[in-house]
Amino acid sequence: MISINENFLKLQAGYLFPEIGRRVAAYAAKRPEARIIKLGIGDVTEPLPPAIIEAMHKAVDEMAAGETFRGYGPEQGYEFLRRAVVENEFAPRGVNLEADEIFISDGSKCDTGNFQEIFGLNNVVAVTDPVYPVYVDTNVMAGRTGGAIEKGRYGGIVYMPCTAENDFVPALPRKPVDMIYLCYPNNPTGAVATHEQLGRWVEYARNNKAIILFDAAYEAFISDPEIPHSIYEIDGAREVAVEFRSYSKTAGFTGLRCALTVVPKALKAYKGDGQTVAVHPIWARRHTTKFNGASYISQAAAAAIHTPDGKTQVRSIIDLYMANAATIREALGGLGYEVYGGINAPYVWLRTPGGMGSWEFFDKLLNEANVVGTPGAGFGASGEGYLRLSAFNKPQRVREAMERFAKL
Amino acid sequence: MISINENFLKLQAGYLFPEIGRRVAAYAAKRPEARIIKLGIGDVTEPLPPAIIEAMHKAVDEMAAGETFRGYGPEQGYEFLRRAVVENEFAPRGVNLEADEIFISDGSKCDTGNFQEIFGLNNVVAVTDPVYPVYVDTNVMAGRTGGAIEKGRYGGIVYMPCTAENDFVPALPRKPVDMIYLCYPNNPTGAVATHEQLGRWVEYARNNKAIILFDAAYEAFISDPEIPHSIYEIDGAREVAVEFRSYSKTAGFTGLRCALTVVPKALKAYKGDGQTVAVHPIWARRHTTKFNGASYISQAAAAAIHTPDGKTQVRSIIDLYMANAATIREALGGLGYEVYGGINAPYVWLRTPGGMGSWEFFDKLLNEANVVGTPGAGFGASGEGYLRLSAFNKPQRVREAMERFAKL
Repeated sequence: MISINENFLKLQAGYLFPEIGRRVAAYAAKRPEARIIKLGIGDVTEPLPPAIIEAMHKAVDEMAAGETFRGYGPEQGYEFLRRAVVENEFAPRGVNLEADEIFISDGSKCDTGNFQEIFGLNNVVAVTDPVYPVYVDTNVMAGRTGGAIEKGRYGGIVYMPCTAENDFVPALPRKPVDMIYLCYPNNPTGAVATHEQLGRWVEYARNNKAIILFDAAYEAFISDPEIPHSIYEIDGAREVAVEFRSYSKTAGFTGLRCALTVVPKALKAYKGDGQTVAVHPIWARRHTTKFNGASYISQAAAAAIHTPDGKTQVRSIIDLYMANAATIREALGGLGYEVYGGINAPYVWLRTPGGMGSWEFFDKLLNEANVVGTPGAGFGASGEGYLRLSAFNKPQRVREAMERFAKL
Repeated sequence: MISINENFLKLQAGYLFPEIGRRVAAYAAKRPEARIIKLGIGDVTEPLPPAIIEAMHKAVDEMAAGETFRGYGPEQGYEFLRRAVVENEFAPRGVNLEADEIFISDGSKCDTGNFQEIFGLNNVVAVTDPVYPVYVDTNVMAGRTGGAIEKGRYGGIVYMPCTAENDFVPALPRKPVDMIYLCYPNNPTGAVATHEQLGRWVEYARNNKAIILFDAAYEAFISDPEIPHSIYEIDGAREVAVEFRSYSKTAGFTGLRCALTVVPKALKAYKGDGQTVAVHPIWARRHTTKFNGASYISQAAAAAIHTPDGKTQVRSIIDLYMANAATIREALGGLGYEVYGGINAPYVWLRTPGGMGSWEFFDKLLNEANVVGTPGAGFGASGEGYLRLSAFNKPQRVREAMERFAKL
């Protein structure tokens, strides 16, 4: 008798963004004339810049001729891209990686979801709260948690609250944990971690033989020169951390699917008998067995990001989004909202007015202002009473959304 | 202390194709002047036809303009592609599916590797032997097997030998099994399953409450009109089978990454207490949580396959490969080799001469004829004494390879 993985039955409701999609679609069906402004899901809106478009047309043409056609590429990604990453993204920050410590994939959602698979089911998982739901849900599916408890939480997971009250800086866990998910710049709060704060995490991981799963998907949005872009800027991190990087928000690749994960060769885990095991070959085995490489067209496009023209063009799009973030911060601040984030991250995190619940405020915004945000409660119990607004939209639309807030 | 998933430590040697790659690279380094002909990994060689190239250029241009830019698509794939699949691939064979029973992905290797994840770890896995290694390795990683035993096998898996002696038709398992991996047309043997043979599997699955994971990656290569292309041509299959389809070999998409999996809404699994659970929403939850959609460019390219021009152009490439298969069959048959497959599949499966071991014959071929095959033993114990030759190459190169065989 074919048995289901009953861990899947522990999962509550739908995944956050499909649920938002359903509510927005239902509203749009009821009020087809409404001009809805979406500041919700955090999808990019600007078209891809010329250097990337040109690289893709060239790659497509290569696929049309026998001499330049490319079939299966290396599962870990093409050398040209892995090398461009280490030379352009890490070396300039003093982080020296080898090209084969970079694993190219089709997205950070996949990588952050899949990486847990190579670790034992007995590991204790720690996440910040609020948190990107994928870290939690994939550990529920794997069986590394108990069932649903209260406020969307699961038994066995160590939640580290991040609220305005602690400046969105999580305290180190009091009980030992093994797998620590950190995301900086943070989705959803827009908070960043200083060199000193990350240093404490690295020290914790080294002392407790824990591993840090560091999601740096938004590092390109950091404006403060003092804030580290990579966890490997912290001494000793490569023995205890993997790092996820994405082209999705950085360069508008949400529809193209390309990302990367850094797995240093120095990274170690342990067998039950205490013997150390290098993580790199284990992840390599997983990646080559269950994945067949990202699209060549997408990898060629990604390589174009690391060229001088690509860098300039991508930077100007990031600047546009960050100007939107400033627009949101200033407008909502002026209206008396408590606003956070939006300086080193494309997300503004705001406290709902009058102690309103996240979903209640979401519905109010949708119904009365036709603006879509993301309910903070969807990211975890400590997100209750907050709402996330994304800076990914046309400047004109963002300004219009702010005018609607003013009338609310 | 971060513990590793020790199931990964059960895995033997490298994944087959990287191992072949290493041996070929080592030989090429030693003999740089050798003109190696690769009939090994089964990667396509023909460039993509005009209808697909045109669709990709158009999709790239859409990404360059604000009005047509596409960010995140639906994780399950664009409606335009899901609909094209049901209308062009299934309806004409009398199989009526709904578009949302199709899940678009970035590859069948991923899908066949990931699908097991939604089932319990207590299920007994049955595979044909020889077999595509991904089915086995991913179940080892998940912990659904014991350790390595003899001849590359793992404890707990039910192996169903397919050799010339049983016409490559596996016997039904004598002990009850729960997850049955079938691949027809078969990789690596090139064998096909008749309507009656598939009917016996569907009956077995229904009687035993088992599930069939049916890999139809090579269905486009079937030439015999009596052979089913889809398991859903068998009555009652949709309650007990998922089906994997790939664009990789069909249309040369190995470098583009697009595939699909059919999960009928009628498909059922069971909880420990015997209650039924619909598989479709569970897979949908997994797919939307751990995957973010295939590249829009690749999905646009895939849709072009289902247009009248696309169909004609893709067919002529398949015909070219199948003419290669005929060349191999005839040449080797004429030389006295025992050859199988190659009529409804792009693979020819041949018995090694003089009882030579698979890897021994692989090395001999590589060293003395500079031809790369795939050792049958790499696909399982019952593949020992066989070699797989792929029809994916230029006709001229295939003929040259056959001349080298003649001189061997």
